[in-house]
Amino acid sequence: MSENSLNYLSKEKINVAVLGAAGVVGQVFVQALSHHAWFTLAAVIGSDSKAGKLYSAETQWLLPSPLPEPATKLILENLDMDSLKKRGIRIIFSALPAEAAKTIEPTLREKGFYIFSNAGALRYEKDVPILIPEVNPEALANIKNQGFPNKGFVVTNANCSTTGLAVALAPLKKFGIKEVFVSTYQSISGAGYPGLASFDIMNNTIPYIQGEEEKMIVELEKILELGAAVYPHCVRVPVLFGHLETVWLSFEKPVETDDIRGAWQKFECAHPGLPSLPLHPVVYSDESRFPQSKMSFWGSPSGMQVFTGRLRKEKERVGFSLLVNNLVKGAAGGAIANAELFLHTYGYECGLNTGGQEVNDEKDRG
Amino acid sequence: MSENSLNYLSKEKINVAVLGAAGVVGQVFVQALSHHAWFTLAAVIGSDSKAGKLYSAETQWLLPSPLPEPATKLILENLDMDSLKKRGIRIIFSALPAEAAKTIEPTLREKGFYIFSNAGALRYEKDVPILIPEVNPEALANIKNQGFPNKGFVVTNANCSTTGLAVALAPLKKFGIKEVFVSTYQSISGAGYPGLASFDIMNNTIPYIQGEEEKMIVELEKILELGAAVYPHCVRVPVLFGHLETVWLSFEKPVETDDIRGAWQKFECAHPGLPSLPLHPVVYSDESRFPQSKMSFWGSPSGMQVFTGRLRKEKERVGFSLLVNNLVKGAAGGAIANAELFLHTYGYECGLNTGGQEVNDEKDRG
Amino acid sequence: MSENSLNYLSKEKINVAVLGAAGVVGQVFVQALSHHAWFTLAAVIGSDSKAGKLYSAETQWLLPSPLPEPATKLILENLDMDSLKKRGIRIIFSALPAEAAKTIEPTLREKGFYIFSNAGALRYEKDVPILIPEVNPEALANIKNQGFPNKGFVVTNANCSTTGLAVALAPLKKFGIKEVFVSTYQSISGAGYPGLASFDIMNNTIPYIQGEEEKMIVELEKILELGAAVYPHCVRVPVLFGHLETVWLSFEKPVETDDIRGAWQKFECAHPGLPSLPLHPVVYSDESRFPQSKMSFWGSPSGMQVFTGRLRKEKERVGFSLLVNNLVKGAAGGAIANAELFLHTYGYECGLNTGGQEVNDEKDRG
Amino acid sequence: MSENSLNYLSKEKINVAVLGAAGVVGQVFVQALSHHAWFTLAAVIGSDSKAGKLYSAETQWLLPSPLPEPATKLILENLDMDSLKKRGIRIIFSALPAEAAKTIEPTLREKGFYIFSNAGALRYEKDVPILIPEVNPEALANIKNQGFPNKGFVVTNANCSTTGLAVALAPLKKFGIKEVFVSTYQSISGAGYPGLASFDIMNNTIPYIQGEEEKMIVELEKILELGAAVYPHCVRVPVLFGHLETVWLSFEKPVETDDIRGAWQKFECAHPGLPSLPLHPVVYSDESRFPQSKMSFWGSPSGMQVFTGRLRKEKERVGFSLLVNNLVKGAAGGAIANAELFLHTYGYECGLNTGGQEVNDEKDRG
Repeated sequence: MSENSLNYLSKEKINVAVLGAAGVVGQVFVQALSHHAWFTLAAVIGSDSKAGKLYSAETQWLLPSPLPEPATKLILENLDMDSLKKRGIRIIFSALPAEAAKTIEPTLREKGFYIFSNAGALRYEKDVPILIPEVNPEALANIKNQGFPNKGFVVTNANCSTTGLAVALAPLKKFGIKEVFVSTYQSISGAGYPGLASFDIMNNTIPYIQGEEEKMIVELEKILELGAAVYPHCVRVPVLFGHLETVWLSFEKPVETDDIRGAWQKFECAHPGLPSLPLHPVVYSDESRFPQSKMSFWGSPSGMQVFTGRLRKEKERVGFSLLVNNLVKGAAGGAIANAELFLHTYGYECGLNTGGQEVNDEKDRG
Repeated sequence: MSENSLNYLSKEKINVAVLGAAGVVGQVFVQALSHHAWFTLAAVIGSDSKAGKLYSAETQWLLPSPLPEPATKLILENLDMDSLKKRGIRIIFSALPAEAAKTIEPTLREKGFYIFSNAGALRYEKDVPILIPEVNPEALANIKNQGFPNKGFVVTNANCSTTGLAVALAPLKKFGIKEVFVSTYQSISGAGYPGLASFDIMNNTIPYIQGEEEKMIVELEKILELGAAVYPHCVRVPVLFGHLETVWLSFEKPVETDDIRGAWQKFECAHPGLPSLPLHPVVYSDESRFPQSKMSFWGSPSGMQVFTGRLRKEKERVGFSLLVNNLVKGAAGGAIANAELFLHTYGYECGLNTGGQEVNDEKDRG
Repeated sequence: MSENSLNYLSKEKINVAVLGAAGVVGQVFVQALSHHAWFTLAAVIGSDSKAGKLYSAETQWLLPSPLPEPATKLILENLDMDSLKKRGIRIIFSALPAEAAKTIEPTLREKGFYIFSNAGALRYEKDVPILIPEVNPEALANIKNQGFPNKGFVVTNANCSTTGLAVALAPLKKFGIKEVFVSTYQSISGAGYPGLASFDIMNNTIPYIQGEEEKMIVELEKILELGAAVYPHCVRVPVLFGHLETVWLSFEKPVETDDIRGAWQKFECAHPGLPSLPLHPVVYSDESRFPQSKMSFWGSPSGMQVFTGRLRKEKERVGFSLLVNNLVKGAAGGAIANAELFLHTYGYECGLNTGGQEVNDEKDRG
Repeated sequence: MSENSLNYLSKEKINVAVLGAAGVVGQVFVQALSHHAWFTLAAVIGSDSKAGKLYSAETQWLLPSPLPEPATKLILENLDMDSLKKRGIRIIFSALPAEAAKTIEPTLREKGFYIFSNAGALRYEKDVPILIPEVNPEALANIKNQGFPNKGFVVTNANCSTTGLAVALAPLKKFGIKEVFVSTYQSISGAGYPGLASFDIMNNTIPYIQGEEEKMIVELEKILELGAAVYPHCVRVPVLFGHLETVWLSFEKPVETDDIRGAWQKFECAHPGLPSLPLHPVVYSDESRFPQSKMSFWGSPSGMQVFTGRLRKEKERVGFSLLVNNLVKGAAGGAIANAELFLHTYGYECGLNTGGQEVNDEKDRG
């Protein structure tokens, strides 16, 4: 987490739960929430059969740093809404598989919980925002159409590969993006655990990821409202973490690479004081081998930023490459940032912010 | 080699030499020529310091099948043109690095040798064809502008990633290709040996290959004369063999995916009786996970074919994926096929075909 | 297959079946039997649900060369013993999972079928031989204790990592092996398909393979009857094919490395005229980087040989490394060689050899 | 770094330099020293040609977390002893290649510098300790035989694979270790940068690392003085970070696995208050798949601990597996710990500790 994030509620942190804590995205939630400035991870919810067992013992830990010390004591629970409420838990981060999410998340919403979900199940419901705080913070207001504050709500983050692209394109929207050609180089962690068989992907690339290309088209439009044509190819590559993407764009207006470079450099997050959000959502470098998949760093700021490079113009089109950490910015980290934005915006309204401190929106200088 | 290739010169095979035999492309030449129907590999030429030593002892063998038995007896030679001529060697396959090729290949040509080169050094000379027999056989005639038959000549094959694309696009040229968006997933064998450091590419992708994107643009135009705009991204991935490519095309005329599918299925090689050339240069499948890098098979026909799949239409554009074995069709195998076409076309003229047999152009049914 | 293998039954090949043809070992059976000198692959048997469908369409092909042409026409069948018998099929190669093998193989044996099984299920039955023709051909006679020729029988090949070790140790038995320390570097293909999750094994090694160390201890003793103490460590590494093993031995008598080297070089197969068996079961090289996993070649002889290297003495112990192709010599190829030895030995007795040709035991010189 | 390490010299940190800062071990020095409790990284010394340039710009960064912010401002220097002395730099961490170290390190020592070297060049000099603070802290006293405090000295850490083994064996020494059989699974980062060609190691294992087996034998004896016979096999595997090792031991006395388990659990560092040294040098788990290469975590404590598992007895021998982070505990982290022990022991004597604070040896509870 960025060091200059302010301690929003210094007197007491807010208890939160993670649903689907055993999977790889669940693990990133656990890791990121173990030392979070505003949240205390108070409940990890898994399958009923494992309830009562130690989270650390039941989890095949998949991340490149050890299970954080606070998480070593967590006990897996089954989903018991009364129990959650008794402990003051209203915010739930969901790393459920799509099928499970489809039935569980609406129920939780109905019961008044605030769901920040990485699942795709409800993303295409009209009033469920696909939220990226740096990109479309205004979409958060849709939670009122879901019944908030009388009821709960679901806020989703975008599909991992869409997230990287949406962040990189957001500051270019003003140039009138007409066409987006994108090819992805998606790491195996994007397929969850156990995900792909090693026999299938070692020493191989697979130019097909079920439903992924459709998601990019639909989600990019819902988030950015570009009205652009999107032409994706989604490909799995034998890399553990990080999604690289190569892009060609066309614009309504004449655009030079300096315009693009400048737009990325000037692009600043409106809420960088939120713990997970860096001031600069996009980091551009002219160095010829920037970015690369291995730059999929963890935590904030590096894991929450989109890295762009290889910018060039060919005839009237502009090409570049981007990298997004699919598990941090593209999944759990994105959902946590969404919860931070919610708390910052509606904390008073829903009684989660009793201390009255304001978020300091001073910018990071990292 | 395809089983139904005819033995062109049954009485005596033609002696050939490989220049730069130690590198990875050199090794594929050695492998493919060890049991070739028309050629006998009579000389392997390396650096002077290794002359006189056993090829098998000096070579770090890199291919997934053992050094062929006939090649175990080859002795490395330095480049001695008189010695080559005394042994009746006129045809030389060059796997030289670009820098070395720039000076050596013109000298050999001047001295009357027929060079089939995988090096990029002379590809952009006006009269040096970039030849793919299935695609632009007419380009072979340019050797006359180089002085053949009075002098020697250089015939090149295309850059590995360009080769795959050119073969897939050739039968679509009739639809009027206007724009080509291509992203590559290039294996490390394309960088030669030792090539990339393992530290750089293991668990990583690198969206930059020096000069590669420029080559695709220039070479595709020289081969196909599409007059199209080409937008490439060339990316290295942690795979040993095979270049995958994702493509979006636009056309001057309305084109349906069935038109594309049909064009590939009907596309036949004009000279499938040549030992290395399969009847069907493009193999298409509708199966969702076809093609993949691991389908980089060896020999002919599979190693000489371009596999296409994932065909679909999005608005007015057509997308697909392709796979080319960068070392076979995209390098040594392509150069050998070029030599076969030359022999078929000009064998009588240059006295290399004394037997008078005709190539049987009957098609394979494989 | 080795080129100088004689055509045992030139007038008619023997129909055989493969049980469990969809898995990775099943695929190696299909590949090796598609062009076998003595056998015709007449039936591929899978799960009932796929019966009637094309083998090529239902199989996720995992091997590094394409599905052989004869196999493209095979139709998956369910296990119907009457149907097999009607087609004269007596020999069945089993690539069943251990659980399934435990019930199916005894039934088939009871019904008179000759089972050459890669499954571990019956390996430890007293009268079921674990057979490696170069090592313990005499064990084949145990089929009589199973009731042959009145009944059928089961002959197993050893576990893949045990096979490599047993072949390398066989010619050293005469020195009185007292202790065997062995650490394995086992490829993921040894775990079958889908086998390990990519998330578990990419960029990782795992020093635990369930039951593997016990198998090495028990099977090595059953095959070689060394009476030696065996200390194994079995480790999975991120490699597709081939099991490397490092070994330290102690002996009852003083032994020099030259004794070992000589024993390997003099070690010859008693039946090299059998189609799959090379004359030299062990190939030794003093080259410092021999062997390596990537030398896991296919077919015979290279895929059927064990490669040894790095031979050295430290105090009174001898160390070396070995490589075995776990899918060929260590699985399907080994089982096929067992069937060849059976046919050579008992062909007349069971009426499978009506032609009366003798196997020519002339040695290969490869 | 462990959180409870005390700030040794709170008033002022000690300026240190890194020699050979561009390589992979140099980078781990830079990373670990960027936020060190006692040291300030004041000079990064590279080749003369790069002197004056920004370290961050000249370095191909190889580690899985970003270059630390303090290091982004460092300027590469050439080796200027006067300049170093003017800035009060006496402690130099050396990541030089062996050849360079052989001439440079003795010169620096002669001039009064305190060298903590990862290079193997001087390891076998009688008075140069191979130091592992948890294992043989008494060896530090040998610096007096090199002339300290009147002159400088060289203290080395062990070869990476030896380090892991020495730490695991240290608490077992009391049982009388007679024989050590060890096979390594060494990551490519142990070969430095650029190190192995990707073509050589991807999808491969190589059972030969030049000089490595000899190092293990000699260094283990110098550090532990076991008088034991050591039988190593050193193998490179396609993994980025971490060296796994499989071990079989024999003892002079009867030993049960519980004795071993207990010895590891009771094994405590005598100086856990030093910033880099965890209380428990060995972390044992009975879980079947512990340890694995991917548990090569960074920083302290996890990167400084040796993980052991798979403990079992076979006849009278004891087997287990271990994992060491070859770049942290096995290289830069080990050298830094050595410098901490030196400062703790001789800080007053050499005037580097003017503040008079004592190290608090309270143990970590992590």
